[in-house]
Amino acid sequence: MKFTINRNLFIENLNNVMRAISSRATIPILSGIKLDLSEDQLVLTGSDTDISIEIKIPVSEDLSVESTGSIVLPARFFSEIVKKLPGKDFSFEVKESFQTKISSENSEFTINGLDANNYPRLPEIPEESSFTIAGKILREIINETQFAVATQESRLVLSGVHFTFSPDSIKAVATDSHRLSERTIALENGPQTKTDLIIPGKSLQELSRIIGEADPEVKVCPGDNQVLCRIGNIAFYSRLLDGNYPDTDRLLPTESTTSVEFDLADLSSALDRASLLTHAGRNNVVNLNLDTENGKVKLTGTSAEIGNVEEDVNFKNLDGKNLTISFNPDYLRDALRASVTDAIVMKFTQPLRPFTVTPNKDDVQFIQLITPVRTF
Amino acid sequence: MKFTINRNLFIENLNNVMRAISSRATIPILSGIKLDLSEDQLVLTGSDTDISIEIKIPVSEDLSVESTGSIVLPARFFSEIVKKLPGKDFSFEVKESFQTKISSENSEFTINGLDANNYPRLPEIPEESSFTIAGKILREIINETQFAVATQESRLVLSGVHFTFSPDSIKAVATDSHRLSERTIALENGPQTKTDLIIPGKSLQELSRIIGEADPEVKVCPGDNQVLCRIGNIAFYSRLLDGNYPDTDRLLPTESTTSVEFDLADLSSALDRASLLTHAGRNNVVNLNLDTENGKVKLTGTSAEIGNVEEDVNFKNLDGKNLTISFNPDYLRDALRASVTDAIVMKFTQPLRPFTVTPNKDDVQFIQLITPVRTF
Repeated sequence: MKFTINRNLFIENLNNVMRAISSRATIPILSGIKLDLSEDQLVLTGSDTDISIEIKIPVSEDLSVESTGSIVLPARFFSEIVKKLPGKDFSFEVKESFQTKISSENSEFTINGLDANNYPRLPEIPEESSFTIAGKILREIINETQFAVATQESRLVLSGVHFTFSPDSIKAVATDSHRLSERTIALENGPQTKTDLIIPGKSLQELSRIIGEADPEVKVCPGDNQVLCRIGNIAFYSRLLDGNYPDTDRLLPTESTTSVEFDLADLSSALDRASLLTHAGRNNVVNLNLDTENGKVKLTGTSAEIGNVEEDVNFKNLDGKNLTISFNPDYLRDALRASVTDAIVMKFTQPLRPFTVTPNKDDVQFIQLITPVRTF
Repeated sequence: MKFTINRNLFIENLNNVMRAISSRATIPILSGIKLDLSEDQLVLTGSDTDISIEIKIPVSEDLSVESTGSIVLPARFFSEIVKKLPGKDFSFEVKESFQTKISSENSEFTINGLDANNYPRLPEIPEESSFTIAGKILREIINETQFAVATQESRLVLSGVHFTFSPDSIKAVATDSHRLSERTIALENGPQTKTDLIIPGKSLQELSRIIGEADPEVKVCPGDNQVLCRIGNIAFYSRLLDGNYPDTDRLLPTESTTSVEFDLADLSSALDRASLLTHAGRNNVVNLNLDTENGKVKLTGTSAEIGNVEEDVNFKNLDGKNLTISFNPDYLRDALRASVTDAIVMKFTQPLRPFTVTPNKDDVQFIQLITPVRTF
């Protein structure tokens, strides 16, 4: 196996494969990156078993092949070497007993590789039932829901986002049972048949990073235990979560007794300050007092050891019954960060019932639910 | 105690006082910042016993005093609050039982303070034998020596930099017994009498940051156990280290058998790459081979588990006997980072004797010494 490649081209692709490689790989060979060279392309593969990424770099004036073959190299170390090499191109050659020579200009590394035959195979996923989505839409819906997945794995199914792909829409729901985020976005060319997938939150984080700021087309190929997403020359595989996702629609309240509208900026900065105190104290809880009679909204936090904070929050509309409610400010902060409008509406029923956070525009289908905390 | 102050003015001074406050204060009150308000100024004090910083903010249109007094507030928390407050100014008022109200616009914090009478007093240092130095010079000499102090406190005196201030120069030496850095810079108005001070490396790091990019005048006031440096409205106190600093001059070799000159950039990048491998392996040692007969310089690193690296290093001049020497690449990297010239000269005697790194210009008094490693 021997080739010469443009260093920047290689690094760009290497950085994407590295997203799949864990620094704490439990199977030693998975701390490596697989390089597989044929006459017409170089294939890079990385995997942490939950996520696998395969990237194909076609032969071009930037990649010339002298002899084919394959090898696994220690990923972090190899990546650091390539980044620090001098020169525009570098040469790569596997010698006997998997010894690999990487050289450019005056610099020459020889590193111990591993037999690529021992690298696990990627699943084969048929692509007949695939469909395509704009990367921008997929990234948006991930960023608006993924933060709400459960991070403690007491119910594994809640560590994923539940996607329902329909011919004309995607719906995504995530909940850790304390808060919930549900977003629906219209699609032009969804799948022919309704497709349900529960994709782990961690996989979605990496997928969102790979999609990036650009708007590449994403081809989604659902398999039995895995889903494959094709983005340009990148094949991104994620494990799917098994099991029944809870029916979250029945949790969403249909009416309210108090409602208030805030500019995102006003509420966020008041919440940030109140959290300073509640984070430093023992109880991370703020109180929101909606005094509809006198037209006042107060956000307060108290800690016996440290002190207290009181914010008069500016609001736009305030209707219904007086209400005082206590909740974890971090959940509201996350909800505000995910917001797609500059103003949001909060609707309440009772001090111990979940409240909703929604955009102030009816045509945006986005609802977040936060469970309050009992403080008495 | 009650005042109103411009928030940016306050934050700027607060940030400097915070440098003296440790997040792991052993004496609880030292995790606080002391505010002491008189008719004409607000004095902020922070200390971790090794370093103390006192800053005076005079009354002005940006600071108006309503009533005098003093208080100690939890430093990190108070600083975060002030940074997140809305508005241009904020008000500060101490109420009963040290409860302190901090407010601006719609935001109001009440935090529990401590009795300022329990805050330790700063030492009184007479200023008769003081002298002044350009901040730029003091900062430079700190940055060129401080990195070489001992961080393991087996010999406490080596955790400091040994300064000798003379009427016409400053000399600074630091060594951790594996490497040494000695720098001398000419002064115009040094102290009348020669003054020896051993200042802890950590104090110097903070002092260098306070001096900053500008070139403020620094007034140095040596005391018995402490040194006071005045920089504008900042009084910076540091503990001095007791004991006799070793006579390092006798360690500096006076002749050499092999010498080589490198461009800083060439040697640094070769060393960076070689360190990649030696850092990943068990022995952090590189070998430098100076082949004066064939006019070749090779830097190599080997690790049985990982592989090896070989760098042909470009050089400018190479004289004397052939030599192969082994050393910790981190020491040479630090020496190169501290370098003030674009090219350096390395001089060697024997494979197991310390070698020197000096500027390629004779008029710069800067010598660094590195002890090699025995590898056979």
